[in-house]
Amino acid sequence: MEATSKSSWRKKLHQIIYEADTPAGKLFDVMLLVLILLSVIFVMIESIRGQPEVVYDLLYYGEWVITIFFTFEYIARVITVKKPSKYIFSFYGIIDFLSTIPLYLSFILVGSNFLLTVRALRLLRVFRILKITRYIGESNKLRKALNDSRPKIFVFLFAVLIISIIAGTLMYIVEGEESGFVSIPVSVYWCIVTLTTVGFGDIAPVTPLGQFIAAVIMIMGYGIIAVPTGIVSAEYANANKPKDKITIDDKEYVHVNSQSCRNCGSSKHRDDSEYCHRCGESLHPDEF
Amino acid sequence: MEATSKSSWRKKLHQIIYEADTPAGKLFDVMLLVLILLSVIFVMIESIRGQPEVVYDLLYYGEWVITIFFTFEYIARVITVKKPSKYIFSFYGIIDFLSTIPLYLSFILVGSNFLLTVRALRLLRVFRILKITRYIGESNKLRKALNDSRPKIFVFLFAVLIISIIAGTLMYIVEGEESGFVSIPVSVYWCIVTLTTVGFGDIAPVTPLGQFIAAVIMIMGYGIIAVPTGIVSAEYANANKPKDKITIDDKEYVHVNSQSCRNCGSSKHRDDSEYCHRCGESLHPDEF
Amino acid sequence: MEATSKSSWRKKLHQIIYEADTPAGKLFDVMLLVLILLSVIFVMIESIRGQPEVVYDLLYYGEWVITIFFTFEYIARVITVKKPSKYIFSFYGIIDFLSTIPLYLSFILVGSNFLLTVRALRLLRVFRILKITRYIGESNKLRKALNDSRPKIFVFLFAVLIISIIAGTLMYIVEGEESGFVSIPVSVYWCIVTLTTVGFGDIAPVTPLGQFIAAVIMIMGYGIIAVPTGIVSAEYANANKPKDKITIDDKEYVHVNSQSCRNCGSSKHRDDSEYCHRCGESLHPDEF
Amino acid sequence: MEATSKSSWRKKLHQIIYEADTPAGKLFDVMLLVLILLSVIFVMIESIRGQPEVVYDLLYYGEWVITIFFTFEYIARVITVKKPSKYIFSFYGIIDFLSTIPLYLSFILVGSNFLLTVRALRLLRVFRILKITRYIGESNKLRKALNDSRPKIFVFLFAVLIISIIAGTLMYIVEGEESGFVSIPVSVYWCIVTLTTVGFGDIAPVTPLGQFIAAVIMIMGYGIIAVPTGIVSAEYANANKPKDKITIDDKEYVHVNSQSCRNCGSSKHRDDSEYCHRCGESLHPDEF
Repeated sequence: MEATSKSSWRKKLHQIIYEADTPAGKLFDVMLLVLILLSVIFVMIESIRGQPEVVYDLLYYGEWVITIFFTFEYIARVITVKKPSKYIFSFYGIIDFLSTIPLYLSFILVGSNFLLTVRALRLLRVFRILKITRYIGESNKLRKALNDSRPKIFVFLFAVLIISIIAGTLMYIVEGEESGFVSIPVSVYWCIVTLTTVGFGDIAPVTPLGQFIAAVIMIMGYGIIAVPTGIVSAEYANANKPKDKITIDDKEYVHVNSQSCRNCGSSKHRDDSEYCHRCGESLHPDEF
Repeated sequence: MEATSKSSWRKKLHQIIYEADTPAGKLFDVMLLVLILLSVIFVMIESIRGQPEVVYDLLYYGEWVITIFFTFEYIARVITVKKPSKYIFSFYGIIDFLSTIPLYLSFILVGSNFLLTVRALRLLRVFRILKITRYIGESNKLRKALNDSRPKIFVFLFAVLIISIIAGTLMYIVEGEESGFVSIPVSVYWCIVTLTTVGFGDIAPVTPLGQFIAAVIMIMGYGIIAVPTGIVSAEYANANKPKDKITIDDKEYVHVNSQSCRNCGSSKHRDDSEYCHRCGESLHPDEF
Repeated sequence: MEATSKSSWRKKLHQIIYEADTPAGKLFDVMLLVLILLSVIFVMIESIRGQPEVVYDLLYYGEWVITIFFTFEYIARVITVKKPSKYIFSFYGIIDFLSTIPLYLSFILVGSNFLLTVRALRLLRVFRILKITRYIGESNKLRKALNDSRPKIFVFLFAVLIISIIAGTLMYIVEGEESGFVSIPVSVYWCIVTLTTVGFGDIAPVTPLGQFIAAVIMIMGYGIIAVPTGIVSAEYANANKPKDKITIDDKEYVHVNSQSCRNCGSSKHRDDSEYCHRCGESLHPDEF
Repeated sequence: MEATSKSSWRKKLHQIIYEADTPAGKLFDVMLLVLILLSVIFVMIESIRGQPEVVYDLLYYGEWVITIFFTFEYIARVITVKKPSKYIFSFYGIIDFLSTIPLYLSFILVGSNFLLTVRALRLLRVFRILKITRYIGESNKLRKALNDSRPKIFVFLFAVLIISIIAGTLMYIVEGEESGFVSIPVSVYWCIVTLTTVGFGDIAPVTPLGQFIAAVIMIMGYGIIAVPTGIVSAEYANANKPKDKITIDDKEYVHVNSQSCRNCGSSKHRDDSEYCHRCGESLHPDEF
């Protein structure tokens, strides 16, 4: 546990940056979170035209502060970790690096195509928002869940694309250019807009046949969600006659249904219940 | 059980307001429900311009009646409950108070910025609709369910915002101002409109690259719902194979049998296993 | 089994109409289905303006044929059933009656407000489509499922309306009339359009605050579906450590997960599997 | 295993085309996939007007290459399979045939109605995308899942159509032609656009009554998905109460215990029962 002054300084810095046990560590995390959010808000405000000049000046100073802080953070991370190369090429290493460079790049890329450069740098600065994911504990689980779902996602994408390409081309033939279906790619785009139920309305069919095909596409897109989950499904779940009893690990379970007690409204009585378990009233009063 | 005339008057009032066992109690509840609904309907009608003057006069008288009734109700609730302060600062206490004051406020806030005052008071009057939640027995369960879902809700919100900020800024760069993407905040708004499949169409991409990115966003927003629940999922659930597989509380279990692996002797393999899960050897060596 | 000629004629007619065992019965059902569909198609075509006069004439003759057939069907149903009054006041009795009268009504209601009469009668004729539900065996289960879901439906409706009224009024205040939010009822309509993710775009917010509130509403409407069902949920289902084994009715089940074999892609291996059950390859090749 | 040179050549070709074990077989599959994707991309690019003439020339040469390759592939498949007729009339046999003929057809169908011919042939060429489904291993499961869901799909379609026809006609009457509801078919189309939450906005109601009916339709379309799956449902599922309740294959079971009713002696009541399910008497008489 003995360490020279230099490595204990390193250890201390590592503690502040990478851990949140000490007050300094917690303060660092909070400051970082605030700066990440501010940096993104600054970019957003900067993109709004027509504001007083002083706003843009203030934002420029803010960008300087943020860049300096992120640069120190990046350097600190690199020098306080065991294998710097492992960090530098990791997801967060790349994000942190990209978060430091926009202002520096704006000096290098002066001149040509000013507007596009400004906008590209804005996008780069907005990527800083991904630094936040370190602090969302759930995002690992989310990433793992997405990974596990890969077969499903692939089949889904595949089906959406095949339907959109074929139906889009069909609409391109049927509707033609006057209603906006100017080419097959644009018609495929329209089909995706429709199948996903977004429905901008920038392009819409005007011929009866086109509207009919559009209706089929819409019902398909809606049905992909509604058929497995809708009330129709609920009906099938209840309709299959369940086994009444079941023994799991030596415990007994009895099937309950959704019948409501007319007196107190509670449900989930046993299938063969005569009286409500909550209020004691008869469940079948007409039969007296 | 003995009580003076004063507290028995109080007890009686408490019974009418807070309980629904007596006919007076039930009548009170019904009248209150009707007045709550009427009060909101009045505000809605009042906001429609171009009606005969007498309509606005009648609505004004109606607002007087409602205010008087709600004032009495509030005072009655305060004086018939054991700990008035506990009621006054509860959710319903605040709602009930806010429900009484609009008309009084309209006398105090005369003059400056008439239109905004009128509109703000209309919003205040519309909040009376929340008084109804007392009578919906399920809303407690609903509030509890929302509370329990808080981690999920947070991760969801977080993912939606990160995607919208990054993709929105990308569209801002790609599309530019002519198609309506005038600033990053507006582009983020458009991305939320698209990701949630609402799709107003007030802003829509016109460039091929923009339409391509938009298609990716739409498929993402649609897929977040469709992939876990769609027919694709149903295929994995395989609900029609009862005895081989079983799903308990969303976890999958597969039946295992007593077949022994000839190589390592382990058993409890899946019914359809070809190879031993422990040593990898074939379970059916005769079939080569 | 002996019967007079009159009641055996009745029995025979009853068999044809109400049962589908005999060839005559099946033919009747098919003819009825066809006529129901034709009657609705006729109304739809009739509503399309600008067609050659002969089309409208043909549709008029078609309507006569349909009316005569439905009238005979109605009379036949009434006289061949045991308790005519029970049929006449049942759901199908009313539908069948309303299906016979439009043409007759068109003679009675001549003159005043011609256009509205024509259109109202068209709606009446379109209700004939409900006669088809007799032949869809599943619709009873569907009706029962809807009944059982009544508490859920009520809470859902209630929540949607409360959110729409409050948020709609808020948008009415923030946006005002220039962007289309002309009154509170119209703003509530817009809020329903947005919350249900339909998003016509006939009205859309233009102010930054309005767009922000709209974004909140959209994320709410989308989240109500996406949070419980989305990939986020899937992650929580898998994250809860499952019991490995479970015994149901003396049969053993073992938990399987979604890990894919890198060789053949199959999943659903036991949690502790070392080798793929389908192809025998190791599931953890890096660890050799 | 002996074979003449001719049938071993056939066997070899069969191996290349139909199997993916050999390097030649894998290369063939990869080439085929690439050509399928290219062929569709070519059609899409070709439909975009206003490009330099050389682009269309290159695409024409590309189409020749693709047609020649697909023709060879088709002939090869036919002659290397045991029962050619079985392949020729199968789904893939038809798709593969249709994938070879567009260019040949374009020579035959010269002249009349040039534009429609060009467009129809483009659709034919786009159908080549279906050749890819051979390589998606999951699509068999997907097709089986769709087959198994047929009752659900039918009831769903049926309900959507009935609601759309009746509500569409209602809107046709209420709104009339000025707002775009020009005929019943168009109004039914609008209703499908609204019920499926697509919401183009090309047609939208302007009258208060029309907007009210539209709101009902939207809430219905949204509710069909949201009620069974939404947070409201989650609350009923009560997933956080593991040992009291359990859901097996979507059926609910509740744990029952051995407590006897003091009145009638029956046991196996729910853990939280207040009253006996058989005789209605209280299970906890001491608490009165």
